[in-house]
Amino acid sequence: MDKQTNQTNQPNQQTKRVESIADMNQDFAQWYTDVVRKAELAEYAETGGCIIYKPYGYAIWELIQKSLDTRLKETGHENVYMPMLIPEHLLQMEADHIEGFAPEVAWVTYGGAEKLQERFCVRPTSEVLFCSHYAKAVESYRDLPKLYNQWCSVMRWEKTTRPFLRGREFLWQEGHTAHATAEESLAEALSILDVYCELSENVLAMPCIKGQKTEREKFAGALNTYTFESLMHDGKALQSGTTHDFGDKFARAFDIQYLDKNNKQQYVHQASWGVSTRLIGAIIMVHGDNNGLVLPPAVAPIQVIVVPIADHKEGVKEKAEELRARLAKICRCKIDLSDKKAGWKFAEYEMKGVPIRLEIGPKDIEQNQCVLARRDTGEKITAPLDNLEQAIQETLQSIHKNLYEKAAARLESSTHTAHSVDELKTILDSKSGFVKAMWCGAEACELEVKEQATATSRCIPFVQEKVGDCCFVCGKAAGKMVVWGRAY
Amino acid sequence: MDKQTNQTNQPNQQTKRVESIADMNQDFAQWYTDVVRKAELAEYAETGGCIIYKPYGYAIWELIQKSLDTRLKETGHENVYMPMLIPEHLLQMEADHIEGFAPEVAWVTYGGAEKLQERFCVRPTSEVLFCSHYAKAVESYRDLPKLYNQWCSVMRWEKTTRPFLRGREFLWQEGHTAHATAEESLAEALSILDVYCELSENVLAMPCIKGQKTEREKFAGALNTYTFESLMHDGKALQSGTTHDFGDKFARAFDIQYLDKNNKQQYVHQASWGVSTRLIGAIIMVHGDNNGLVLPPAVAPIQVIVVPIADHKEGVKEKAEELRARLAKICRCKIDLSDKKAGWKFAEYEMKGVPIRLEIGPKDIEQNQCVLARRDTGEKITAPLDNLEQAIQETLQSIHKNLYEKAAARLESSTHTAHSVDELKTILDSKSGFVKAMWCGAEACELEVKEQATATSRCIPFVQEKVGDCCFVCGKAAGKMVVWGRAY
Repeated sequence: MDKQTNQTNQPNQQTKRVESIADMNQDFAQWYTDVVRKAELAEYAETGGCIIYKPYGYAIWELIQKSLDTRLKETGHENVYMPMLIPEHLLQMEADHIEGFAPEVAWVTYGGAEKLQERFCVRPTSEVLFCSHYAKAVESYRDLPKLYNQWCSVMRWEKTTRPFLRGREFLWQEGHTAHATAEESLAEALSILDVYCELSENVLAMPCIKGQKTEREKFAGALNTYTFESLMHDGKALQSGTTHDFGDKFARAFDIQYLDKNNKQQYVHQASWGVSTRLIGAIIMVHGDNNGLVLPPAVAPIQVIVVPIADHKEGVKEKAEELRARLAKICRCKIDLSDKKAGWKFAEYEMKGVPIRLEIGPKDIEQNQCVLARRDTGEKITAPLDNLEQAIQETLQSIHKNLYEKAAARLESSTHTAHSVDELKTILDSKSGFVKAMWCGAEACELEVKEQATATSRCIPFVQEKVGDCCFVCGKAAGKMVVWGRAY
Repeated sequence: MDKQTNQTNQPNQQTKRVESIADMNQDFAQWYTDVVRKAELAEYAETGGCIIYKPYGYAIWELIQKSLDTRLKETGHENVYMPMLIPEHLLQMEADHIEGFAPEVAWVTYGGAEKLQERFCVRPTSEVLFCSHYAKAVESYRDLPKLYNQWCSVMRWEKTTRPFLRGREFLWQEGHTAHATAEESLAEALSILDVYCELSENVLAMPCIKGQKTEREKFAGALNTYTFESLMHDGKALQSGTTHDFGDKFARAFDIQYLDKNNKQQYVHQASWGVSTRLIGAIIMVHGDNNGLVLPPAVAPIQVIVVPIADHKEGVKEKAEELRARLAKICRCKIDLSDKKAGWKFAEYEMKGVPIRLEIGPKDIEQNQCVLARRDTGEKITAPLDNLEQAIQETLQSIHKNLYEKAAARLESSTHTAHSVDELKTILDSKSGFVKAMWCGAEACELEVKEQATATSRCIPFVQEKVGDCCFVCGKAAGKMVVWGRAY
């Protein structure tokens, strides 16, 4: 890239240039809702508790999908599609699972005018459908592993909803795998967690903490649940995705057996895992600022927006269009030739989080250059047209790196240590963030933290640190460091 | 491609090499079911009337999706996602629409343990959700056109089902657009029909007849429905996809108005259109033969399967793997290194319709060549390794061309003309296929054809031919030539 960078306009990120959205430092919840609507990501549907994924929001999801789908195929997974309705008898086959999901499923009871003999629930997740399939499809060790995934929507009859974060219907992928041994299903749950975190870091520019859920927080029916937790701008945690090791629990309930190499019947071991459109919520809340959305380049539907300046002057529109055509070959580039004022366009594409705005006017054309304005820093760079492709690519990379580093620095500075529930509560009430504390492993202590400090255990991080000797709740000997927080 | 082609094995397509599937000439329905299962495309799910899309079947759908999605984006359409549940009051807003769909929708009546105040149906199609959104989102002529599409599944509570052809749940795309004028919504319905037919011909190698549906056969709530009809191997018709022009019918029901350039309120004009996983059924029934599935190269998940011959001999596996790696750069290429016998592998990939089987053994290696076996003709071609990429690309193109031409020739030779209902019945009872006949336009005549000959009007083709002067049913003056047939 051109070294003659020229910082003409580095705004204070605390100032709010667009008046129509709430200040994130004053009312984060309102700011979030404003960004979702003003950036045209989604809006509420006539169907209560459900949203409409608008073109811009859905395009972000398509980019996340494509990135993850490629990774899943590269690691040997295959896509399938199972029915959206689950017969009631199937849902009931695994006791913990039905207990966890029954209160929040939607029931189909009529087909046309006819009352159905058996009810069907709209899938809240599809473990039981995959299990019922595997029970028939798996006969010998040669049929294993089964590494299936599906992209679909699921339904959970939630009372309170927020776009992308919690809704009655959301889009996701759910992987369901069957393996010969306990070691393999565990390895699957852990390796998919790695895939998720790699995606989070390299695609979403979002650092995360990997760990295991406590017994209390694990998935209904799982032996163990693994999670990656991210920190939002307001200091609250977001469970961004989970993977589950079922061991042979579902296999026993559904009688999924295979003939091993020694001709003996064995139960399969299973894993499941999912990430959802919740990741869009995470992107908004990790990177957004008071001018709106800030998109990591890898998931930006528009990576470069070309805005001609003084475009009534001869040759400006043509030159701008020429640049768009050049850049469209190397990135997702669009041009705005509408008759709106340049300032209005600037604000609109800032709201939409477009990583680079390319300005080109008569003077720039004279000097064979253009101006690149970075969404993440507000910095303006003068770039010669001759080597524009390289400047764009380097700037996109630099934006990703900067977004990641800013988020990582915030994660680091917002992670605290507590030695008592009071201390934890004080931290969360004042500074918010993640809190590390030693825990004895008793559910009673977890419950007390919830009651006293309205915080939950986010995970038992894989990377442990000894921040004390005793449980910060009961004072007994404690072997595990747990990360706590208030979560979405 | 190498000109030294060597036809060592051109089998008679009438002989059935794989014993485990029914003969298509004796029991076409059983043959279809056998292919769906043996080629591992789908199987019945525990949820009655629904199928599991297995990896190989779903991969074909992904390739169709990708081809169509690219075309839709290139023509300015944007993807969105609407809720899967429709509140009952919304479904009831357009009279013809509710009348058409009410008998076949699944109703959600409970959320968890709680009986809902209003029922929701699982979408059978989403016109009303898009209308309710447009009623809010469209204000001025500047907001038009809205060119939205969504990829999802829909549910229709069918009594009799067949994999891919008719099922309680199927995957599809549904486009829903809003325009300023009647001319524009009509133009949209017609131009999408062109996109579909271009896809059908250039991707699925499937010729089709384009036309308009009669009043009786049009979509519930549409002003006009357009269709492309394909002819299956057994002489039956398949409605492969439809587009609908609604005029302002839904706009009036949902009060979707915009302010035009003269500051006057106007109703929008709408279109909708969809193709579904039914296209997979069409591929099976248009191209399949007694050895199983035959896939057009553009939608073949595996385009070339490398099968090493005498692979216990030194260097064979390595050479085969080297070829796979080379070809994987230009096409979807896999290798089968399992310990199954070569003959068994041949039959398996024939059943799965893989366009090219590449055989390589010790003698081939000696002569720096390999053998390419075409799935469509059974022809074997000796190809030098030096220029293998080109030979593969040319063979894939040639397979597409041959499949299309074979299907087009069959469509042509299976299209007959009738001048009376008796004649039509005789043709359909003996030779099957499409039958052209003049029609007066009266629904009574259409009904009589249905009762007398169990045939329906497939469409009023855009390309009209005068095959007589009078209606072949009532004998009155007739201005329209209609194509009739028995359909899936």
